[in-house]
Amino acid sequence: MNGYSVFCVSDHTGLTIEAVAKSVLAQFPRIEFSLITLPFIDDAAKARAAAGRVAVTARALVFSSLTDPALRAHFKDAGLHVFDLFEHVSPAVERVLGEPATPSGGHTHGMASDYEARMDAVNFALRLDDGLSPEHLGQADLILVGVSRVGKTPTALYLALHYGLRAANYPLTPDDLANDGLPRALQPHLPRLRGLTLAPERLAAIREARLPGSRYASVAQCRSELDAAERLLAAHAIPLIDTSRMSVEEIAARLRAS
Amino acid sequence: MNGYSVFCVSDHTGLTIEAVAKSVLAQFPRIEFSLITLPFIDDAAKARAAAGRVAVTARALVFSSLTDPALRAHFKDAGLHVFDLFEHVSPAVERVLGEPATPSGGHTHGMASDYEARMDAVNFALRLDDGLSPEHLGQADLILVGVSRVGKTPTALYLALHYGLRAANYPLTPDDLANDGLPRALQPHLPRLRGLTLAPERLAAIREARLPGSRYASVAQCRSELDAAERLLAAHAIPLIDTSRMSVEEIAARLRAS
Repeated sequence: MNGYSVFCVSDHTGLTIEAVAKSVLAQFPRIEFSLITLPFIDDAAKARAAAGRVAVTARALVFSSLTDPALRAHFKDAGLHVFDLFEHVSPAVERVLGEPATPSGGHTHGMASDYEARMDAVNFALRLDDGLSPEHLGQADLILVGVSRVGKTPTALYLALHYGLRAANYPLTPDDLANDGLPRALQPHLPRLRGLTLAPERLAAIREARLPGSRYASVAQCRSELDAAERLLAAHAIPLIDTSRMSVEEIAARLRAS
Repeated sequence: MNGYSVFCVSDHTGLTIEAVAKSVLAQFPRIEFSLITLPFIDDAAKARAAAGRVAVTARALVFSSLTDPALRAHFKDAGLHVFDLFEHVSPAVERVLGEPATPSGGHTHGMASDYEARMDAVNFALRLDDGLSPEHLGQADLILVGVSRVGKTPTALYLALHYGLRAANYPLTPDDLANDGLPRALQPHLPRLRGLTLAPERLAAIREARLPGSRYASVAQCRSELDAAERLLAAHAIPLIDTSRMSVEEIAARLRAS
């Protein structure tokens, strides 16, 4: 057993320090790490309790994003290995800015000013899910198109929740594909259309979970629909993303950059 | 003008380095920063082009999470201020682990092994949205309850997309609240119920956008529903989160930790 227990300690959600720990530890591929997040460690009592829990864990590492140095001290005083985001990065930033960091500067995931915009975007994505309300497609920032179960809905919801983008999604049905033309509702919105595609085997596995043993879920049917969809999108120069090996974060980031 | 343009440069989505930049820069509240993310900078040509773009920007800072030192060099050679996540954090981790970091270790938002679980969770959240399919509540990890428009749906979707949790949501209607008992469908699931509430003024503003001028959107009606819901949840010792000043990230992290 050469693994480590990695505690991600934060005085807020812990999202940032979790992401940092995963990024940095991915550079040590021969070692196994199991991550435990301890969020909302925002007073001395919680810090003491958390440090106590870590201290009794064998082979423990601490990644922290604790803005208050006094809270960090609980972990260091317990003799733990602590990698604190602010201690490692802030001094270099201070030197360039010529100004000292303020320990209680604020939180990145606090009450974001864009909260309502993101909630509106979620409601928009749900209202324009799967071809619903096509008369409102003109209000969309992006319109995701693709065959059934290719991942349009989760992607649209992620774009809404994370970036506040108004993403509609519109299915390409076998009927649409037989017509070999873009569905009429989509035609006025060409610059905002984005295609999603998948490896046929992956799509078949996803459809199989929904309708086991169906023609709809067969690899042959999936391949035929995906081929037709890719030809249709290429004919209209619509950007296409193959999501087979991507997380929803990567799909969304690529769409946002497209 | 004492502001800075902050470029978040990544060979992948840029989510991690964006979060790091926001956290660190929040400690300099007197300075204004505008963030620009440059994702998928994963070869020399893209790095050269990105560095060129940054170099012609006045008062530019670079936060980077570039695993390949050769790509970072393009930014440093251009004389830019570069804060690289790996350069600042990895050496300390190497010393503790007694092993050198491998620059091309991998990505945290690559093809996650939990992709399908998260997509399943999204579909579950949609299937059990707003009290739908109550016969499947037994399969939920969490069941969010609260009055109309209190934020149940976006929160359930975030829990699904980010954590892969199966979160149902169930509305407390004025009729339910008049009965002063927990809706029958919820009663078998008490340990997994979580309440959401809001300041009445915030809820009224959200409802006003949906049904302007309605009784449903009046502050008095919102206050009455929220008061009744809070009493009902307290009577059953159901944990309650006041989301008035929280982002969806914070709501979700608190629910996950609850």
